[in-house]
Amino acid sequence: MMVTVLINGAEQADASRAIDVNDRGLQYGDGLFETALVADRRVRFLDDHLQRLADGCERLGISMPDRQLLVAEIADVTASVPRGVLKIILTRGIGSRGYRPANDVPPTRVVALYPAPEESPRRALTLRWCEVRLARNARLAGIKHLNRLEQVLAQAEWHSADVQEGLMLDTEGELVSATAANVFVVRDGTLVTPDLRFCGVRGVMRGQVLRAAQRLGMAVSEEPLWPHHVACASEVFLTNSVRGIRSVGALVEHEWHEAPVADQLRAALGL
Amino acid sequence: MMVTVLINGAEQADASRAIDVNDRGLQYGDGLFETALVADRRVRFLDDHLQRLADGCERLGISMPDRQLLVAEIADVTASVPRGVLKIILTRGIGSRGYRPANDVPPTRVVALYPAPEESPRRALTLRWCEVRLARNARLAGIKHLNRLEQVLAQAEWHSADVQEGLMLDTEGELVSATAANVFVVRDGTLVTPDLRFCGVRGVMRGQVLRAAQRLGMAVSEEPLWPHHVACASEVFLTNSVRGIRSVGALVEHEWHEAPVADQLRAALGL
Repeated sequence: MMVTVLINGAEQADASRAIDVNDRGLQYGDGLFETALVADRRVRFLDDHLQRLADGCERLGISMPDRQLLVAEIADVTASVPRGVLKIILTRGIGSRGYRPANDVPPTRVVALYPAPEESPRRALTLRWCEVRLARNARLAGIKHLNRLEQVLAQAEWHSADVQEGLMLDTEGELVSATAANVFVVRDGTLVTPDLRFCGVRGVMRGQVLRAAQRLGMAVSEEPLWPHHVACASEVFLTNSVRGIRSVGALVEHEWHEAPVADQLRAALGL
Repeated sequence: MMVTVLINGAEQADASRAIDVNDRGLQYGDGLFETALVADRRVRFLDDHLQRLADGCERLGISMPDRQLLVAEIADVTASVPRGVLKIILTRGIGSRGYRPANDVPPTRVVALYPAPEESPRRALTLRWCEVRLARNARLAGIKHLNRLEQVLAQAEWHSADVQEGLMLDTEGELVSATAANVFVVRDGTLVTPDLRFCGVRGVMRGQVLRAAQRLGMAVSEEPLWPHHVACASEVFLTNSVRGIRSVGALVEHEWHEAPVADQLRAALGL
């Protein structure tokens, strides 16, 4: 499944026995991650990913690893790989029991390479609304931390391959993002995306898209959006570092594939 | 640090190399845990802990391990131990990259024994208010899941040994709990504790205390509480499976131990 994995710089012969049971990443989700596309033997937007990781470290009070060290490890696992997905996990390290973080513990860094997904990036996506809501906590908004149960439960909601992603609202009903992508809508010619002041991840591709749109002279805005802004948008797309910019073709509210009660009543009434 | 650890029933010679880097507990905090006191060679309130774990499994869609198997493993690590802390971690198992949970993957179960903390349980606690708020998400309320960044950040807020715990509010300002304990206040002779409808953990000791109070004929209530309910309570205590019932002696708003600017101005003005 994985091509290579380094933990604190050491290549793992056995990735199935690699992490300390007392690692705070496992114990509390106490850490951060990054997922980046490797294409043509280089990591796309690596500077942006490292900057977001550094921002997350500052917010959580985790020591950011030395940049040169991290870049060298990334080069190591991506060397001679034409295409793949780079995943970095940075946890607060190995702790004793209890929530309180120790000051003197080095973080655990995982640098791993996975195969790239097979995608047809031009095909328009079909989306649904997720039942699971995102909790609001400005303290954790924007960063890519390891507390991702809401996204896991959201993706567990549907199984149809006809639906590729789900849109998520926060607990007050504001639009935040898809489960694993940011969302943009075009409204009266302006490109608008949720401002993520309470929750959601500030995607690297989201930032690239905002800056590219400005360079192209488009009107852009980050602001609170609600479900009706999706329905009345002239265009909707999702952004994600691995999948790029994916246009949305349809939003399904609900589909009923079987109607056994109506069928039974129709039969009973000879209709 | 740990006395014994079993992973999926197997005793680990090296707990520092025990967990798969692709375990969803590490990747997304996708799992649950329990922490119980071992005293006089038995696990206190084991049935309650296993019931909460089973409730959490149902809420997250994780398969609860066979009860007899789990009880046997717990007996194994706690055998001949007069006193300690039992920790169970149950994750959704080893996954491929991406939030979507697979259906056919067995959960990872960790059963570990740690030393019990040295405590003077009768000493009244000094508490503070935490700055970090708890996000509201009814979907995750009550269960003891692995997404605990808020508690980690809250405990990182203070370093004074004079303060032993911090009270936490949710993002709307309601009282929820301490960082690692439930909270009870006595108001006009009634024992009241937050109802935890939006966040917080339904502690095993909290449940035991509610039932014991009813048996004793006390008036009890689970309802929304706000910070002023703490200030005007005739008595406040915290409950936790390991630490039992701990009375609160004081709640400090803020203490300033140094005043360098005032010192400098006093000196400048010869005061």
